[in-house]
Amino acid sequence: MANEKIPYKIYLTEEEMPKNWYNVRADMKVKPAPLVNPGTLQPMTAEDLAPVFCEELIAQELDNDTREVPIPDEIRGFYKMYRPSPLVRAYCLEEKLGTPAHIYYKFEGNNTSGSHKLNSAIAQAYYAKKQGLKGVTTETGAGQWGTALSMACAYLGLDCKVYMVKVSYEQKPFRWEVMRTYGASVTPSPSMETEVGRKILAEHPGTTGSLGCAISEAVEVATTNPGYRYVLGSVLNQVLLHQSVIGLETKIALDKYGVVPDIIIGCAGGGSNLGGLVAPFMGEKLRGEKDYRVIAVEPASCPSFTRGKFAYDFCDTGMICPLAKMYTLGSGFIPSPNHAGGLRFHGMSPVLSQLYHDGYMEAVAVEQTSVFEAAEFFARTEGILPAPESSHAIKVAIDEALKCKETGEAKNIVFGLTGTGYFDLVAYEQFNNGTMTDHIPTDEELAVGLAALPPQPNL
Amino acid sequence: MANEKIPYKIYLTEEEMPKNWYNVRADMKVKPAPLVNPGTLQPMTAEDLAPVFCEELIAQELDNDTREVPIPDEIRGFYKMYRPSPLVRAYCLEEKLGTPAHIYYKFEGNNTSGSHKLNSAIAQAYYAKKQGLKGVTTETGAGQWGTALSMACAYLGLDCKVYMVKVSYEQKPFRWEVMRTYGASVTPSPSMETEVGRKILAEHPGTTGSLGCAISEAVEVATTNPGYRYVLGSVLNQVLLHQSVIGLETKIALDKYGVVPDIIIGCAGGGSNLGGLVAPFMGEKLRGEKDYRVIAVEPASCPSFTRGKFAYDFCDTGMICPLAKMYTLGSGFIPSPNHAGGLRFHGMSPVLSQLYHDGYMEAVAVEQTSVFEAAEFFARTEGILPAPESSHAIKVAIDEALKCKETGEAKNIVFGLTGTGYFDLVAYEQFNNGTMTDHIPTDEELAVGLAALPPQPNL
Repeated sequence: MANEKIPYKIYLTEEEMPKNWYNVRADMKVKPAPLVNPGTLQPMTAEDLAPVFCEELIAQELDNDTREVPIPDEIRGFYKMYRPSPLVRAYCLEEKLGTPAHIYYKFEGNNTSGSHKLNSAIAQAYYAKKQGLKGVTTETGAGQWGTALSMACAYLGLDCKVYMVKVSYEQKPFRWEVMRTYGASVTPSPSMETEVGRKILAEHPGTTGSLGCAISEAVEVATTNPGYRYVLGSVLNQVLLHQSVIGLETKIALDKYGVVPDIIIGCAGGGSNLGGLVAPFMGEKLRGEKDYRVIAVEPASCPSFTRGKFAYDFCDTGMICPLAKMYTLGSGFIPSPNHAGGLRFHGMSPVLSQLYHDGYMEAVAVEQTSVFEAAEFFARTEGILPAPESSHAIKVAIDEALKCKETGEAKNIVFGLTGTGYFDLVAYEQFNNGTMTDHIPTDEELAVGLAALPPQPNL
Repeated sequence: MANEKIPYKIYLTEEEMPKNWYNVRADMKVKPAPLVNPGTLQPMTAEDLAPVFCEELIAQELDNDTREVPIPDEIRGFYKMYRPSPLVRAYCLEEKLGTPAHIYYKFEGNNTSGSHKLNSAIAQAYYAKKQGLKGVTTETGAGQWGTALSMACAYLGLDCKVYMVKVSYEQKPFRWEVMRTYGASVTPSPSMETEVGRKILAEHPGTTGSLGCAISEAVEVATTNPGYRYVLGSVLNQVLLHQSVIGLETKIALDKYGVVPDIIIGCAGGGSNLGGLVAPFMGEKLRGEKDYRVIAVEPASCPSFTRGKFAYDFCDTGMICPLAKMYTLGSGFIPSPNHAGGLRFHGMSPVLSQLYHDGYMEAVAVEQTSVFEAAEFFARTEGILPAPESSHAIKVAIDEALKCKETGEAKNIVFGLTGTGYFDLVAYEQFNNGTMTDHIPTDEELAVGLAALPPQPNL
């Protein structure tokens, strides 16, 4: 390994850590479309949203104008406990690939939730606490978000009720044991505890659940229990705002060494990591100051960007949530059960959807066996066992680095390594045993979900 | 949280990272007793050890005089990939405890092996590679060492054969799936693959194995397969040498802020973490420059220091290894099966044993339910889910901090947080369900192991 000036890991000092979140919507010429009431097809007001979400979070959700949002001191204190996350120069990976490219990754896995989700969990729990609530409800799929929220709630002394997609609950008992260790209650979804759960179980007795269904249950519980609100780990504008801390730290770290990225790559399920990672870079791009290639990587088995429709749709299966305008496969779409890890949401962040629609970013869909190949190669080279989600970004970062090898270009490639794969070893086992398969939905399979889109508002 | 000058996490720059390991034996007036041939009862020479260990590692094992051992550039390069580890000021823990004490912990869990074991694994794999070997064999109990060695071998392209204590193999399938992801072969021990394994299985057909037995198997395979050597993750002098990087980083970080520890606390199974953490501080103490209270914490169910004998004993059950002089419970001692996690070795590092014998450190034994109580409290307060091993140190650090609360003393308490508990959730589940129990061996139970000590050399 060359003795380079840039260290293997760039850490910011506490003083260098961001003091504000950055709201990319402030710089968007075309703002993301507003959430819409499914009954009236009119934009949701703060009042409409108040039974579901915390007040301060609603304000953040609806605010398309304020560019810099101060991070409250209490949240900054919590951030200092597990942040800054390292920006890693992947010297070992570069060497093994024999690429002239310079590869960097922002590693968000060095906390017990195992991912970047904690950045928004502590913010949402903080505002719930500030509002004097008793607790919050949420859903979780792969489990990172539920774990993150449990940690944040334990820290602040809030009650935490998690509805976990049944298939994940059964496959990942250790995931919910962690949540339990942090004092959360975890219920496999669909459950008999909610009206929507009972309805779904009556209609689909053997169902293993879906994120959309777990969302419906968590929202129902929040709106029917005094002192509770619902919180969500992705998709929403407020989440992207909190997650901007990832991109801001990345940018400060790169700026310290005068490095300008050519390509920025992130995995995309609901968009929380990608939206956070690219935020400040996208801001420069929107303001016409700089240009970057931004690539969203999604699973071929759940291809919202690359094969979905840009339309208003429900975020949940029970159709009790507001409609969001986004790239969607239809709220009834459930990825094939052979799909490992997260990134299984049928929709996508409205902010990222608008940016993609307006040509500010690209998207690519990759198959999971190729993703796990990249993951294992990365683990053996860079020493970190990556989460399946993060490995989508690794796969495309390696592809781009190999293109640089062909062309001889020393491009700067930055990608988001969202988390670790300690709770995904069933999937690694399948890969190691050669029993992992791919599933690309046919056009006919996709047509079913897309045909069920709700009536579109005329705004 | 107060706005203190000392940050939540102290990271060293690459330039500040240690360039040499520190060999505490150089400063010991009474050196640790030499390894002894169990047949002749004479000290083992480099020649005697050559069939088992790598040459360079034997030299390090026998060298009681060289104070500073340069860390080869290749190892420093690997260290830079996952080190420096943070020295964390436990502000949140201090606040929750309401203690005037200042608590620091050196957190070694931010790498995929989940512990400090990687520090010695990469060193031992490096010297094996340098010697032109094909591969290495080892044993693993809780699994951290096996994972660490797998990672190091994957990085260097060495074959890696791991013998894993059967009870852990069965309880922790994900642990060995990680090793397999890193290309290692993992065999539950005792196995039918070795003579010693077959013998033990014939004598104890239902045995769930022990570290001592797995060591015997790994040594047999190393000595009967050309191009292989045996490596060990704890106990040995060489391991403490490599692990001194923990203490050296800790000391540099504390020195930067002018902090002098009053108490240094580490968990002790074979002694690899404690020996590494305290090394440079112990050096100052041995040279009469400074004084520190050093506390070894061991499980009450495997109390080598507090209830063992300081005597020559086998390191393995098969009695094919050299004898080491150490605090031991007898090589036949197997901790109660209700004991969670590691720290289940019957013996102890000869270096630490000598230091303890000579009054340079204290030892305390704690029961596991109190350890898991401390672990859960710590997880909820500091955000890190700790390994059961590390939680022994947490327990005593909290006890000492609470004593400071009584006396009003603002002592500086430093402890080693060796790793994370992601693969110990079966134990956390027992604790959360209230089914975890304690087992303190009776004097009669201990007498059995101690009665079986080998003939003592007369050196």
